[in-house]
Amino acid sequence: MYLPILILFSLLSSSYASVNDFCVADLKLSDTPSGYPCKKAASLTEKDFVYSGLGVAGNTSNIIKAAVTPAFVAQFPAVNGLGISLGRLDIATGGVIPMHTHPGASEVLVNIQGTILAGFISSANKVYYKTLNKGDIMVFPQGLLHFQINSGKGPVLAFVSFSSASPGLQITDFALFANDLPTELVTKTTFLDPAVVKALKKVLGGTG
Amino acid sequence: MYLPILILFSLLSSSYASVNDFCVADLKLSDTPSGYPCKKAASLTEKDFVYSGLGVAGNTSNIIKAAVTPAFVAQFPAVNGLGISLGRLDIATGGVIPMHTHPGASEVLVNIQGTILAGFISSANKVYYKTLNKGDIMVFPQGLLHFQINSGKGPVLAFVSFSSASPGLQITDFALFANDLPTELVTKTTFLDPAVVKALKKVLGGTG
Amino acid sequence: MYLPILILFSLLSSSYASVNDFCVADLKLSDTPSGYPCKKAASLTEKDFVYSGLGVAGNTSNIIKAAVTPAFVAQFPAVNGLGISLGRLDIATGGVIPMHTHPGASEVLVNIQGTILAGFISSANKVYYKTLNKGDIMVFPQGLLHFQINSGKGPVLAFVSFSSASPGLQITDFALFANDLPTELVTKTTFLDPAVVKALKKVLGGTG
Amino acid sequence: MYLPILILFSLLSSSYASVNDFCVADLKLSDTPSGYPCKKAASLTEKDFVYSGLGVAGNTSNIIKAAVTPAFVAQFPAVNGLGISLGRLDIATGGVIPMHTHPGASEVLVNIQGTILAGFISSANKVYYKTLNKGDIMVFPQGLLHFQINSGKGPVLAFVSFSSASPGLQITDFALFANDLPTELVTKTTFLDPAVVKALKKVLGGTG
Amino acid sequence: MYLPILILFSLLSSSYASVNDFCVADLKLSDTPSGYPCKKAASLTEKDFVYSGLGVAGNTSNIIKAAVTPAFVAQFPAVNGLGISLGRLDIATGGVIPMHTHPGASEVLVNIQGTILAGFISSANKVYYKTLNKGDIMVFPQGLLHFQINSGKGPVLAFVSFSSASPGLQITDFALFANDLPTELVTKTTFLDPAVVKALKKVLGGTG
Amino acid sequence: MYLPILILFSLLSSSYASVNDFCVADLKLSDTPSGYPCKKAASLTEKDFVYSGLGVAGNTSNIIKAAVTPAFVAQFPAVNGLGISLGRLDIATGGVIPMHTHPGASEVLVNIQGTILAGFISSANKVYYKTLNKGDIMVFPQGLLHFQINSGKGPVLAFVSFSSASPGLQITDFALFANDLPTELVTKTTFLDPAVVKALKKVLGGTG
Repeated sequence: MYLPILILFSLLSSSYASVNDFCVADLKLSDTPSGYPCKKAASLTEKDFVYSGLGVAGNTSNIIKAAVTPAFVAQFPAVNGLGISLGRLDIATGGVIPMHTHPGASEVLVNIQGTILAGFISSANKVYYKTLNKGDIMVFPQGLLHFQINSGKGPVLAFVSFSSASPGLQITDFALFANDLPTELVTKTTFLDPAVVKALKKVLGGTG
Repeated sequence: MYLPILILFSLLSSSYASVNDFCVADLKLSDTPSGYPCKKAASLTEKDFVYSGLGVAGNTSNIIKAAVTPAFVAQFPAVNGLGISLGRLDIATGGVIPMHTHPGASEVLVNIQGTILAGFISSANKVYYKTLNKGDIMVFPQGLLHFQINSGKGPVLAFVSFSSASPGLQITDFALFANDLPTELVTKTTFLDPAVVKALKKVLGGTG
Repeated sequence: MYLPILILFSLLSSSYASVNDFCVADLKLSDTPSGYPCKKAASLTEKDFVYSGLGVAGNTSNIIKAAVTPAFVAQFPAVNGLGISLGRLDIATGGVIPMHTHPGASEVLVNIQGTILAGFISSANKVYYKTLNKGDIMVFPQGLLHFQINSGKGPVLAFVSFSSASPGLQITDFALFANDLPTELVTKTTFLDPAVVKALKKVLGGTG
Repeated sequence: MYLPILILFSLLSSSYASVNDFCVADLKLSDTPSGYPCKKAASLTEKDFVYSGLGVAGNTSNIIKAAVTPAFVAQFPAVNGLGISLGRLDIATGGVIPMHTHPGASEVLVNIQGTILAGFISSANKVYYKTLNKGDIMVFPQGLLHFQINSGKGPVLAFVSFSSASPGLQITDFALFANDLPTELVTKTTFLDPAVVKALKKVLGGTG
Repeated sequence: MYLPILILFSLLSSSYASVNDFCVADLKLSDTPSGYPCKKAASLTEKDFVYSGLGVAGNTSNIIKAAVTPAFVAQFPAVNGLGISLGRLDIATGGVIPMHTHPGASEVLVNIQGTILAGFISSANKVYYKTLNKGDIMVFPQGLLHFQINSGKGPVLAFVSFSSASPGLQITDFALFANDLPTELVTKTTFLDPAVVKALKKVLGGTG
Repeated sequence: MYLPILILFSLLSSSYASVNDFCVADLKLSDTPSGYPCKKAASLTEKDFVYSGLGVAGNTSNIIKAAVTPAFVAQFPAVNGLGISLGRLDIATGGVIPMHTHPGASEVLVNIQGTILAGFISSANKVYYKTLNKGDIMVFPQGLLHFQINSGKGPVLAFVSFSSASPGLQITDFALFANDLPTELVTKTTFLDPAVVKALKKVLGGTG
C-alpha cells in the first residue's frame, strides 16, 4: 500500500515545486512586470490567504469625507499574480471620492450600505452616471475617469474589485495640484487660471 | 471657436469607433475565446453598466441551504472582456457551498455578514482553511477545490469576485453524480463503491 | 516534381486557413474584446498593410494649436490584434497637447522636429517631465496623465506608438467640460468653482 | 569586410542581451507569476533544450496501475515561460488515471499505444467521453474534471501536452482523502458518509 | 427533493450560457485575434473533442521525404482558444523537415520512433542542435529557425505540440522560392546569385 | 487641513508601493518571461524615461549599406514590461535591410525620409510588398520574413515600433551563414549547394 503513495507523491511533489497555483508575493524582492516573486510554498499557511484590513472603516474625517482602503498586493500579498484585488470605500454623508482613474485595472463596485451617485466618462467623452442602491453593482472600465458621491442621508459602505493585483489610483486633483508640477505647466495643459491652480495647490499640498 | 471642436472631435469620434474602453456583450452573437462581440457603443446607456440582480437574496430552501447568484457575463454583459465578474453567496444556518472549482478564474471572497469556515486545497494536496469573520477577505486560487461553510449561528452573506467575466463553476458532487456518467466509470475513477455512487446519483438527479 | 508541391501545399493551405499571422479588421462586423473579426486572407493585398494618413500634417488652426492624427484600428485595420498602433502629433509654435490619458495602452514618442516639453504623472503623483530634442524618445506608461508642449520656436512633428491597436484617448478637459456632465457633479468631484466649470464648458462646448 | 560584421553584431549582441527568445528556468531563484527567472543565455548549451525523462516508462506497480511522468518546468526548465509542457502516461491493463484537474492548463492527449476510455465533465455537468484508439488525440479543457482508463487488453502509452509550463495536477481523491482535512469537513462538503471518508483516508494516507 | 435541483441548475445553466470552458471553433464564421467564434455548446458531442487525423502516416513520397500533418484549429476546431495544438511528423530515411519557423508558437517535439538530428538558431545566431533518440523531447522557441533531419536508418515518427491553436508555418525555402517574389528582390535581400534563386524557384514552383 | 493629506497619502503611498504603472528594468538582475525586475520607483527620475540613442544615424558603411539602431529593453530599460519598443533604420542609397524576422513582436514602420521598397511573406507564402513614400506606415506581422530596400536616390530614415520590449531579430543570412552550423546541415535544410553555403559563410564570418 505504500508504493502508490510514494509514486504518486513523487509526481505531486515534483509538480508541487513547479505549480504556481498561487504566488504569494515576497515584497522584500524586486517587483516584475508580472508581479512580485513568490514566497516558498512550504512557508505558507492559511493566514497568508486571509486579510482582515477591510473589516475596519476608513477614517473619513478629511476634506473629501471619504476613505479608500486598498487590499492590493502591497497590503494583501496573496493576490499577487492572480489578476484581482479588492478595496473598501467609506463615504460619510456629503462625502465624495473625487474624479480619478485606475491606470491598471477595470473596477466593479458593490454597494453594501447607503446611496451612491456614481459615474464614468468614456474615451468618447460620453458620461454614464446612475444612482446605486444597496446591492447594486456598477462597472468602471479600465483607465477611465470616474467618481462616487454619497447622495444619500447616511454613510456609504461599498467594496470595489479590480482586474489587477495592483490597479493603481490616480486622483486627478492630486495628480494636478498635490505635487511640484509648475503652475505654468498646469495652466498650459488644463486651461485653468494660474490663480485657480495656485489655490488648489495650496489646499492639496502642492508647490511650484 | 468651432474649429477646435470640429478638429478634436474628428479625432475623438474616429478614436470612438476604435476604442474598446469597454465591450458590453451582445449575447445574441456567438461567444469567442476573448468574450462576446460588443454592442454598438452608441446604443449604450448608464443602465448597461449597472446590475441589480445581486441585491436580492438567493433562495436557500434547498439541500445545501445555500445559493450562489452569479453576475457573470451572461447575467451582466458589461463585464464582458474586462477580466472580472462578481457573485453573491447566501448561506443559511447550517448551510454549505460544497466542494467546487472555478476552471477559469481566481476568486476573492469578502464576508459581509455571519461567520464562514472556508478553505481550499492546493495542487500539492495541502489544505488551507480558516474562519472568516465579518469584513475578512480570502483568496481561492484559480482551478483549486474550495468550499464555504456557514459555521456561525445566523445567515451568511458574502460577495465573491472573480478574475474572469466567465469563471465557470464545477461543483464536484454535481459533476460526478448529477449527470449520466455511468456508475461503473465513476466507481473506477473515484474508488467509491457503486452503492455510494448510486445513492448520490439518486439524491442529485443523476442516472446510469 | 508535382508531388512535393501538392503535398506541401496541402499542408500550407490548411495551415493558411488557420493562421492568424495577421487579422486585418473587418470594421463592418462587431468588435470583440480581442479586436475586430478578420477579413478573409484571400481578399487582402499589399494595400491593406500600408497607410498614408500620417503623411499629412494635422490642422493646428485650433484652440490648442495642435492636432493628433491617429492610425488606430479604425483608421488602419491592419493593426487589428497586433497590439500596436501609431499616431502623428503636429504642434504649432505655442501649441500644446493638453493633459490626457490613453486608457488602453502605453505610449512611446519619437521627436522628429522641434523642441517638446513632455511629462507624465505617476499613480504616486510624482511628476516626470523633460525637454525632448530631435531624435529623443520618451515613454508614457499606460493610463497615466501626460502632456506635450511645443517649447521651441518652430513647429513640432512627432510620431507616437502605442501598445494597443485601440489605445483610446481621454483629454481631461474634454472629459470634464465638453459634455453634459452637470456642473454640480463636476464641481463636487474636482473642487473647481461652478463659475470656472461653466466658463470651461462654454469654451469646450459642454452643457449642463 | 570586418565592418559589417562588427556593426551588425553590435546590433545583434545588444539585441542578444534583451531577447527572451527563451528563458530557461533558473530553479534556484524564486518563481514569479510569469515563471522562473532565466539562466544567462551564455551559459546554455543544446543539452538545456532536450529532456530524456519521458523516454522511460513510469512505474505502474501501484494502486491505480498507472503513472504520470511530468516534463513540467520543474523537470524540464527549458519550457519556462513558453506556455507549454509535456507529460507521459503509462497505464497498465486494468489501470486508470483517476478523476483529476489541471488548474493551470488545457491538455491534449495523443494515444501512442493501446486503447483508452477518456472523458471530461464541463462546468455545465455535461459528460464527454470516448474510446481513443492508437493515434487519436483528445482535448481536455482547462480546469475541468477528466479521467483516462485503460479499456483495452494491453498496456497504454500516451503523451499529454499542456498549455502551460506548470499546469498543476489535482487528483480529486488525493485532494479530499490524502491530507489532514478533517473528516467532518470532507463530509459536509461532499455529502459522503464519515465511514466512507475514513475508509478512503486510510487507503490514500490521509488523517483527521 | 426537486427544489435543490431547480435552484442549483438555474445557477448552473446560467453559468452554462456564460462559460467558455471551451470554445470549439465555428469555422464558417470569421476568425478573430483570439480565435474563431464558438459553436453553441448545446450542439457539441464527444466527437467534437477527438481527432483521428494524426493516426495516419503522412505521404513522404516527395522532395523532402517527409510530411507534416497538422492538428491546428483548421483541422481540429476543439483547440480553438485553448493555446495549444498538435502535429505529426513523418520523415522517411534520408528525409528532412527543412529550415522553418512557426511565427505564432513555441514547439515541443517528442520522438516516438527513429533517430532525429534537430536544432534551432537563436536571435543571437547561436546554434543549438542535438541527436534525439526515442522518447527524447526538445523545445523550439517561438519564431526561431529550426529543422529536423532523419539521421537514422529507419523511418521517423514524432509528435509536435505548439503553444497556440494556429502556430503557422513558414518554410524558408518555400517563402523565398515558391511564390512570385521577383528574383531581383530575393537576390537583394538574401545575397544569393540570381542563378541560384531561379534554380530554386524552378524546383519549388516559384515564378518571377 | 493636514488630516486629508495624511489619510489620502497613506492610501497613495501604500498604493505607490504596489503600483506597477511602470517597471523600469534593473538589467543587473535576471530577466524573467515577463521582463526584467523593476528598479525601485524611488530611485527613478525623468532621465529614466527618455532615451537619446535614436537621435544619431547608424553607421551604414557596411556590406548592407544600412544599420538598425535598437531601443529595446537592453538599451532603454523604461520600456520593460510595457509591450512596446522602438528602433531606427538608416539605409544609404543602394542599401538594404536583408530578409529577417522578429520572433517576438509585430512591427510598424514609419518612413521619415526617402523611398523604401518593403515587404513581407505570410505563412501561406503569399508576398506583400509596396513602395513607401515619406509619411507612409506599413505593418510587418509577428514572426514573418520581411525586408526593406532603399529604392530611391537619397538616404532613407525610418523609425520602427514593435509590440514587445524585446522583439528579437533574426536575419536569415546571418542565422544560416554567420555561425558554426555545419555546411552539411545548412545544405540539407536549405537545398543550397555546399559551394554556395561555403561562399556565404566566408562573407558573413561563419565556419564549419
